[in-house]
Amino acid sequence: MRHARLVGAFARRAAVAAAVAVPITAACEPEPAQLRATQAPVLCASAAAAAPAKPAFPPPAPPVGAPDTVPTSKRQRDMEALVCELQDSICSALEDVEGAPSRGGKRFQEDTWLRGSDGHGGGGRSRVLQGGRVFEKAGVNVSIVRGVLPAAAARQMRARGKDMTVRPGADGLPFYAVGVSLVLHPRNPKAPTAHANFRMFEVRDWDPVEGCERARWWYGGGSDLTPSFLDEDDARHFHSTLKAACDKHGSELYPEFKRWCDEYFNNTHRALPGDDGERRGIGGIFYDDFGDTVMSAKEAEERSEEGGGKAFDFVCDAGRAFLPAYIPVLVRHVDEPFTEEDKRWQQLRRGRYVEFNLVHDRGTKFGLHTPGSRIESILVSLPETARWEYQAEDPPKDSAAGRLLEALRRPREWA
Amino acid sequence: MRHARLVGAFARRAAVAAAVAVPITAACEPEPAQLRATQAPVLCASAAAAAPAKPAFPPPAPPVGAPDTVPTSKRQRDMEALVCELQDSICSALEDVEGAPSRGGKRFQEDTWLRGSDGHGGGGRSRVLQGGRVFEKAGVNVSIVRGVLPAAAARQMRARGKDMTVRPGADGLPFYAVGVSLVLHPRNPKAPTAHANFRMFEVRDWDPVEGCERARWWYGGGSDLTPSFLDEDDARHFHSTLKAACDKHGSELYPEFKRWCDEYFNNTHRALPGDDGERRGIGGIFYDDFGDTVMSAKEAEERSEEGGGKAFDFVCDAGRAFLPAYIPVLVRHVDEPFTEEDKRWQQLRRGRYVEFNLVHDRGTKFGLHTPGSRIESILVSLPETARWEYQAEDPPKDSAAGRLLEALRRPREWA
Repeated sequence: MRHARLVGAFARRAAVAAAVAVPITAACEPEPAQLRATQAPVLCASAAAAAPAKPAFPPPAPPVGAPDTVPTSKRQRDMEALVCELQDSICSALEDVEGAPSRGGKRFQEDTWLRGSDGHGGGGRSRVLQGGRVFEKAGVNVSIVRGVLPAAAARQMRARGKDMTVRPGADGLPFYAVGVSLVLHPRNPKAPTAHANFRMFEVRDWDPVEGCERARWWYGGGSDLTPSFLDEDDARHFHSTLKAACDKHGSELYPEFKRWCDEYFNNTHRALPGDDGERRGIGGIFYDDFGDTVMSAKEAEERSEEGGGKAFDFVCDAGRAFLPAYIPVLVRHVDEPFTEEDKRWQQLRRGRYVEFNLVHDRGTKFGLHTPGSRIESILVSLPETARWEYQAEDPPKDSAAGRLLEALRRPREWA
Repeated sequence: MRHARLVGAFARRAAVAAAVAVPITAACEPEPAQLRATQAPVLCASAAAAAPAKPAFPPPAPPVGAPDTVPTSKRQRDMEALVCELQDSICSALEDVEGAPSRGGKRFQEDTWLRGSDGHGGGGRSRVLQGGRVFEKAGVNVSIVRGVLPAAAARQMRARGKDMTVRPGADGLPFYAVGVSLVLHPRNPKAPTAHANFRMFEVRDWDPVEGCERARWWYGGGSDLTPSFLDEDDARHFHSTLKAACDKHGSELYPEFKRWCDEYFNNTHRALPGDDGERRGIGGIFYDDFGDTVMSAKEAEERSEEGGGKAFDFVCDAGRAFLPAYIPVLVRHVDEPFTEEDKRWQQLRRGRYVEFNLVHDRGTKFGLHTPGSRIESILVSLPETARWEYQAEDPPKDSAAGRLLEALRRPREWA
């Protein structure tokens, strides 16, 4: 990763992007005291301190495509800068855990891609670490895309349907999406898999009453943990770190987003009599339609320098809480001894991870059914290896594996 | 398998079932010369000859549930007997290839299951061989179920929508489904995976013009081959054996069903510029809505002893062609040497198999979204192990793996 290579097409456009790119330090600019109080000091401090000691990542120009895909508002610029910042800080911290190449540690490999052959419509910057000492497979991807959303895809994308009207004469809904998405599969079965995602969507639809174009945007995302064995200290640490980040923005947020996470990451097809499904993991937070804002396109343009406001402040804190929530859990287990049976159980759990992502996950389904989406980036979430046995027996109830299964079937409170 | 155990509930109902069960030898009874000419003599002869030499399978009583789930027509009895016959003959032939337990060969393990706690609604008989010498995982399942189909599930089930009207006051469409389904994953990467399925559906809907209940039934199924390496002799043998079975019933069938198979088993989300997707395998035959018949429920009752006619004759031949199509291919490769790289490539192909089954397969989606369906039987189709790498490179074009990939992207004619 330290020697990341910009592919030709992206390099050519970097100069264009640089003209509008916001320096990362200015992203999520304190809009006064509130944000300052909500920053995750540990992470910011460690990222800042680490920077001079290492070869820097390439300039954090957002991986935009052609000139017509540059951000058009402070809200978009800020979110693009945030997702690039998170990609940088998370990859850097994970490489620290992975360890030096001389000890067998692998680096992230970067590749940038453009949507369509000419880069109109945006692109992405993928960073993947495969076959590492600590990570079997880890992907941390940024994407920024613009396009037209077919009505069917729009339905699948939204957690809660809102009436959206296609502009008379148009093919669908013009949209803009920016996000960072990561899935980390450690090799050691005692070390949990983690997933996080932070994104903003904007859609243009039509106000049939006023007869004008309407702008609508909102944030979605979250972080969740998928261990193969239950470790209650891990669960409490992960959840309480996320809760602290949420609580700064309102005490109602964590309980709602924790419950939403348990509801969303649920393999309902694995329900047994007496429960409503088997959760993918022990949860975390999940939110969608956050900071949902609607106004006429004309008003949105006039207010384009206002930024994402309090909703964006929350997204910054939630995103920056990922590393302090996960890294201590990861580090505790990365060199823990394990047996072949532990590995087999991890592989069976990986099978469940694949089931959730391919059968239920809205983001994956959206990608698989959107023409022109980049399949490698979507399926980087799948583990390197997975296993399915017919009628595999449940582990003993009093084992860490059995306690995990119980927590997946009946989610608990951890913070 | 030889010492298959009938679970309690099934055993209690076996006596009821026996009263209506058709002896297997009488199934698909020649309804004159036509069928006699179309029987697959090799398979029937070998099955008959093998029977006395081995401990017999348990009596082929269809795994029906409570008394209200017994077949109500010759058409249903015949199909139930056919699927049980195919399950027996296929398991027996596969155990022969697997080899004697003294040489490390495994046997099929049988379990029977009832739908719902009381067996109302039918059940199934699953036979699974795991961790064998030849087979990593092989499942051959019979199921016979009755229920009420929610309108949404009805839509997903049908390849080509037909207007079906729910009887006024009813919750959905009463249905009956009988089928045998098998997926065989050999251990050796040079030996292809095979899949086959033979089923009949019946639905009762409402004729809004005549104001009466209407009966509708049809057959679906097929066989297809999924190698990891292209062997043209295998492809020709597999396809020409299926073609010969089809040709007895009309020369138009094989070309249509071969094309349908290529269209259906297609990972469209893996399309590259210039192709329309990556087929799961090198195809075979696939058919649905075959012998589609509609009449008033009253007429159907009056004609209940007529059987499935020519459509059923075809299904018998297609089903009995599976073993002669697959076994020679399997036997040729089962002890072939292979490298670690061959195994890795097989595991990546297994990943694609999982993708197709979880993302696209209508039968799997139908099962995953039907309350009360038996998840273990549905997901027995998944391989024991699978692998995903980010941006795995294509194998060289002039290798057997590269030639396979080319045939998956641009299906060829083999017979």
